[in-house]
Amino acid sequence: MAELDEIGVGMLGYAFMGKAHSNAYKTLPYMAWPPPYVPKLVAIAGRNEEAVSEAAQRYGFEGYVTDWQALVEDERVQLFDNSGPNNLHTEPSIAAAEAGKHVICEKPLGRNAEESHDAWKRVDAAGVKHMCAFNYRFVPAVRLAREMIAAGELGDIFHFRGRYLQEWIVDADFPMVWRLSKDEAGSGALGDLGAHVIDLSRYLLGQEVESVSGLTRTFIEEREGEKVDVDDAFEAAVRFSGGAVGTLEASRFCLGRKNALSFEINGSKGSLVFDLERLNELQVHLTGTSPGEQTQGFRNVLVSEADHPFWEWWWPHGHMIGWEHSFVHEIHHLLSAIREDSDIAPHGATFEDGYRCAEVCDAILRSAESGAREEVSYRD
Amino acid sequence: MAELDEIGVGMLGYAFMGKAHSNAYKTLPYMAWPPPYVPKLVAIAGRNEEAVSEAAQRYGFEGYVTDWQALVEDERVQLFDNSGPNNLHTEPSIAAAEAGKHVICEKPLGRNAEESHDAWKRVDAAGVKHMCAFNYRFVPAVRLAREMIAAGELGDIFHFRGRYLQEWIVDADFPMVWRLSKDEAGSGALGDLGAHVIDLSRYLLGQEVESVSGLTRTFIEEREGEKVDVDDAFEAAVRFSGGAVGTLEASRFCLGRKNALSFEINGSKGSLVFDLERLNELQVHLTGTSPGEQTQGFRNVLVSEADHPFWEWWWPHGHMIGWEHSFVHEIHHLLSAIREDSDIAPHGATFEDGYRCAEVCDAILRSAESGAREEVSYRD
Amino acid sequence: MAELDEIGVGMLGYAFMGKAHSNAYKTLPYMAWPPPYVPKLVAIAGRNEEAVSEAAQRYGFEGYVTDWQALVEDERVQLFDNSGPNNLHTEPSIAAAEAGKHVICEKPLGRNAEESHDAWKRVDAAGVKHMCAFNYRFVPAVRLAREMIAAGELGDIFHFRGRYLQEWIVDADFPMVWRLSKDEAGSGALGDLGAHVIDLSRYLLGQEVESVSGLTRTFIEEREGEKVDVDDAFEAAVRFSGGAVGTLEASRFCLGRKNALSFEINGSKGSLVFDLERLNELQVHLTGTSPGEQTQGFRNVLVSEADHPFWEWWWPHGHMIGWEHSFVHEIHHLLSAIREDSDIAPHGATFEDGYRCAEVCDAILRSAESGAREEVSYRD
Amino acid sequence: MAELDEIGVGMLGYAFMGKAHSNAYKTLPYMAWPPPYVPKLVAIAGRNEEAVSEAAQRYGFEGYVTDWQALVEDERVQLFDNSGPNNLHTEPSIAAAEAGKHVICEKPLGRNAEESHDAWKRVDAAGVKHMCAFNYRFVPAVRLAREMIAAGELGDIFHFRGRYLQEWIVDADFPMVWRLSKDEAGSGALGDLGAHVIDLSRYLLGQEVESVSGLTRTFIEEREGEKVDVDDAFEAAVRFSGGAVGTLEASRFCLGRKNALSFEINGSKGSLVFDLERLNELQVHLTGTSPGEQTQGFRNVLVSEADHPFWEWWWPHGHMIGWEHSFVHEIHHLLSAIREDSDIAPHGATFEDGYRCAEVCDAILRSAESGAREEVSYRD
Repeated sequence: MAELDEIGVGMLGYAFMGKAHSNAYKTLPYMAWPPPYVPKLVAIAGRNEEAVSEAAQRYGFEGYVTDWQALVEDERVQLFDNSGPNNLHTEPSIAAAEAGKHVICEKPLGRNAEESHDAWKRVDAAGVKHMCAFNYRFVPAVRLAREMIAAGELGDIFHFRGRYLQEWIVDADFPMVWRLSKDEAGSGALGDLGAHVIDLSRYLLGQEVESVSGLTRTFIEEREGEKVDVDDAFEAAVRFSGGAVGTLEASRFCLGRKNALSFEINGSKGSLVFDLERLNELQVHLTGTSPGEQTQGFRNVLVSEADHPFWEWWWPHGHMIGWEHSFVHEIHHLLSAIREDSDIAPHGATFEDGYRCAEVCDAILRSAESGAREEVSYRD
Repeated sequence: MAELDEIGVGMLGYAFMGKAHSNAYKTLPYMAWPPPYVPKLVAIAGRNEEAVSEAAQRYGFEGYVTDWQALVEDERVQLFDNSGPNNLHTEPSIAAAEAGKHVICEKPLGRNAEESHDAWKRVDAAGVKHMCAFNYRFVPAVRLAREMIAAGELGDIFHFRGRYLQEWIVDADFPMVWRLSKDEAGSGALGDLGAHVIDLSRYLLGQEVESVSGLTRTFIEEREGEKVDVDDAFEAAVRFSGGAVGTLEASRFCLGRKNALSFEINGSKGSLVFDLERLNELQVHLTGTSPGEQTQGFRNVLVSEADHPFWEWWWPHGHMIGWEHSFVHEIHHLLSAIREDSDIAPHGATFEDGYRCAEVCDAILRSAESGAREEVSYRD
Repeated sequence: MAELDEIGVGMLGYAFMGKAHSNAYKTLPYMAWPPPYVPKLVAIAGRNEEAVSEAAQRYGFEGYVTDWQALVEDERVQLFDNSGPNNLHTEPSIAAAEAGKHVICEKPLGRNAEESHDAWKRVDAAGVKHMCAFNYRFVPAVRLAREMIAAGELGDIFHFRGRYLQEWIVDADFPMVWRLSKDEAGSGALGDLGAHVIDLSRYLLGQEVESVSGLTRTFIEEREGEKVDVDDAFEAAVRFSGGAVGTLEASRFCLGRKNALSFEINGSKGSLVFDLERLNELQVHLTGTSPGEQTQGFRNVLVSEADHPFWEWWWPHGHMIGWEHSFVHEIHHLLSAIREDSDIAPHGATFEDGYRCAEVCDAILRSAESGAREEVSYRD
Repeated sequence: MAELDEIGVGMLGYAFMGKAHSNAYKTLPYMAWPPPYVPKLVAIAGRNEEAVSEAAQRYGFEGYVTDWQALVEDERVQLFDNSGPNNLHTEPSIAAAEAGKHVICEKPLGRNAEESHDAWKRVDAAGVKHMCAFNYRFVPAVRLAREMIAAGELGDIFHFRGRYLQEWIVDADFPMVWRLSKDEAGSGALGDLGAHVIDLSRYLLGQEVESVSGLTRTFIEEREGEKVDVDDAFEAAVRFSGGAVGTLEASRFCLGRKNALSFEINGSKGSLVFDLERLNELQVHLTGTSPGEQTQGFRNVLVSEADHPFWEWWWPHGHMIGWEHSFVHEIHHLLSAIREDSDIAPHGATFEDGYRCAEVCDAILRSAESGAREEVSYRD
């Protein structure tokens, strides 16, 4: 019998992200076998008692609370999982860290760079492991892309083009939800979708965003009688610290694009293309491959071989995995870092990564306002 | 609190299929919420004690046994899950059924039609629910295809072309595994891969295979000094009971094809194309769609909308699911049928479906031998 | 100034194929520069005087005739181009050859093997160059595929799957055209579309079709009160002389398939996939390519590089060419063979190739009738 | 016999564009039958006598000259075709127009907005037909996109994303050609490739580019000892006069991208996607199409139906045409306008369109320099 230790998990939030994280805690112990820890689901927090109690039963938490403070104070909780809405990202995360708990927090880390910087510095000072849940770093095809670039297989990087397109608010009758309010969400497509693109650009290239020239647009300015004060879309031309240039975009007004996070990277030795709607595929173009130039072309790599990232845990090749599995990989990475006291970075995003992403978002908003190209400066 | 009942599960086999089924039992109670039953994993059976005991710990079975008879005799077991090798499909399934347990058995049901017919008749006579685990019926895109055809959206069906291509034994040094032995596997690519294609043709068209003209081929006839006595590939021209014609094929000698189960169906009002390597997509061509013929074409339907089959349980659209989820859907269907005493058919495959598929396989082998077109006859 | 010789061309037929061939005669002298000959369009023959005279003016023929015999007797004609209907393929081609003219004849060569054999033997005996216009051999991607296979880049060939799917007679109200009459067309989808697939299988593999097990189907048996006595579709399982197995198919009942001639070839070192609807692309999968197995996958080769077949004559890469250019390449090949007294084979199809294809077609019809696997025997 | 009139054509340039235009003059009279005029190829001009004389023989021009002035003075020339290098676009075009000849000039019209404006005003004042050869307007799929948008089928337009990516100068050893010199080319990827994207954005949306925020990048600043003083790539965020926002990009540093002009357009009723490497396809997503939302998705429209733009002249559907045919359509449009004294606009680009495109290019260069968002102002 393998000897397995447990780790106590307290979760804030039971909606979309709470479901995705819960699934990961339940799946990883037998899939990523043997697991670094067996997650013990201690308690889940939410304001609606009926809903949160049902979530506790459904996902197998031992209990539930209607005040996240109770999680912070619960000694059984060693890992605080913040899957709540954006305006509850920083305060509970800081409190939990300062109570000695490791923290994973959904993106965006804060509603702006200021809030995010504060969260990073205080959580980091608490000496716990901290992770900002940019889960797309843990898609096997994305990790493969990162490994190829880091190994120099693409040579010098010339271009990064990233976009995250969805379609869900094209209808003018779509209601005024919290994601459309600046106070609750911080920003619109930018912080919700763009943050993923920005984080991937930094992760994949190993370069920082140096400057941005952008604009934002709110196509439908009023819904249900309320003012929409966040962006429906943004567009930006960017320059990276290593000299690469490209574009960053996000929009919720692209009919037919369900969850289209895509990027194209061009380097001096090859190119990569990825699309989240086909998350198990990576388009790879490499020059100089045998048997000669006559058969060069973008290869459709099905990222499912036994030696592909994370695939040791899953199925024979060609038996594709789903979107949700990125969370399994992500939380496994976190538990391993806690177990071995190893670094979250570079493959996992820390709160520092969450903060740096927020600086880029803020610079895009400033550029949209000023019309000027904005240099992005990062604080220590 | 939802009131949930349990159902005791005993499983035979802990390898590839055992892992896939175990994952389904663990996932469905919280994903397909509220579940018809909460599976209680009573015991798992396997010949290798070290391996089966680790499997029990890993997947959370309360115990393990090294003799499947013990599962049959265990009163806590209400559902017998046969995920063992092909030559252990019929005898344990019959025994379990005759002991009053519901049965799900992996495909192919038996090593030939005779064995399969016997299993069907005896299990059916026992009055339990029985399912032959043709899991691809439970891929959302496949279910959608079936619903469209059943609703007449494709009109009269002219063609079904199905193939299942893999690449794993092209290398002449690949070892002599049980899947290459007739005594253990029954047949080669035919029973392993072709069975899925045959079952899908029957399920999707709602027609029986009427005649087959085929051939088989063993490209590498000896491995590790032993004779390979099963087919590496088969090819067949077929005619269906409703008048459709087409081809059925399977091969393990197709480099680059990892798990390429694909079909194309053409009818008098449209066509459908599916490829398991992109399991969340269905190519749909329908004539007469607005705004006119100028924009007709195959649509790439991302099968992930809230009103698509099975998607009520999962994620927002565009957040794709994996191969393994077909088992979640399949076992949910079985548990619901047990709960409500409803029929497994038509969406689930029964042992009768397993038998009928075996008749087609046998006819293909006869045709390969005789050179003649073989009519397929089905026994009651 | 380059010194250029002329060759006198007489053409039979001014419809679809006449237009395609005329375009080739007019285009090749400046595109495939310098040309082996400058085609001098002497005269065009057709039964409808108004239509043929307009065709002569349109395409720049010096004259027209309403009786193809006049072309045979015209001393200015050195090359006889038979683009007429199927039932006028053999007699005029033989007459022209026996009058000392080189001959290119559209496929199928004859309405059956007997007729085709006679045409081959008599034309060949006349000592002229003869070509059966299987133009798809001259698509750059197809030639590249042939060159790769011939060079052993795919290793031993296991499978050839070929199909040619169209959609044009699904409508029961589609009229009774000559292509649906056995007397005029010989066969239906088989001779019209299937002939291309059969020819490509022989050309690409360098193997003969050894046996066929097939069936045919006429979905709509009467149109405009007349009996349709040819096949709407055929399906066949085949074995090649070198041991490869696969399927051959054609149908005119596949909605959404406009001109879908496609093939997949699997060998011991790689696989190729082609689809005429994307005629400038070849999907290539090769094992063992650097930088390692992690990035294997089907490459989408845009066949448009300067060193790709025929591309020296065209545009910079990525500036795609059209379907019609296959005829430019084909007729250039013919003129070069005449100029240099070199062989049409192996890249061009001779009348012998036309005959051998007809033997396969006949064997498929026999198999459809008899239900037996038919060995294909070829006469000298 | 159809009565056909001739039009005398004088051409400047015999390289890539000269070949493409010559092919169009030779092809259109019999393909677009009956033609508005039969082009009579009077003379071709080029500085290298040996090369230009060979070009005259090859393409069938009656004569050649080494000084373009001779074309301007030649009374037989009614249409002046300027396929020369960028620094010879404006002066000869103006001279020809002022000598009373109709003019078609390759893009970019001038090396900057100033030069382009001058050309437009003077040529327009001469009262002749003038066309700036943005040939991609004449790709059938592009015309179909325009027609759909103009008919309101996409609703209000939210986004235009356009890019033109090539790969030909990634190699640092690639020589210092005229396209890399500002004096000869005006700009780099911007004027060569970006001009096409900009023109398509204006043509397709029927909106002007209102503001640009951009940057340019020269990755390799010296070749063969000479300074590269044009951009290798540019990136811009843009806003259109009708409120749409998006990105414009071009680069010559994208390995694997041969000739990848692509765009995506999102509106309130649907989306369109186009890629020149598959020029006969248009991806169309429309909401609300029967038989219901379950089968929505991007349709791959093969733009080759008889009622698709320009297809009346070509082949049965699915028999794809090539890149070069865009010039056949373009020059046919020009000859028709001359014949019928009808407008070049809106489907053809006039010199005014060439000028407006140049204003956008200049604004991007200004923004790259200043870092500011630049409003684009257009002169009368």
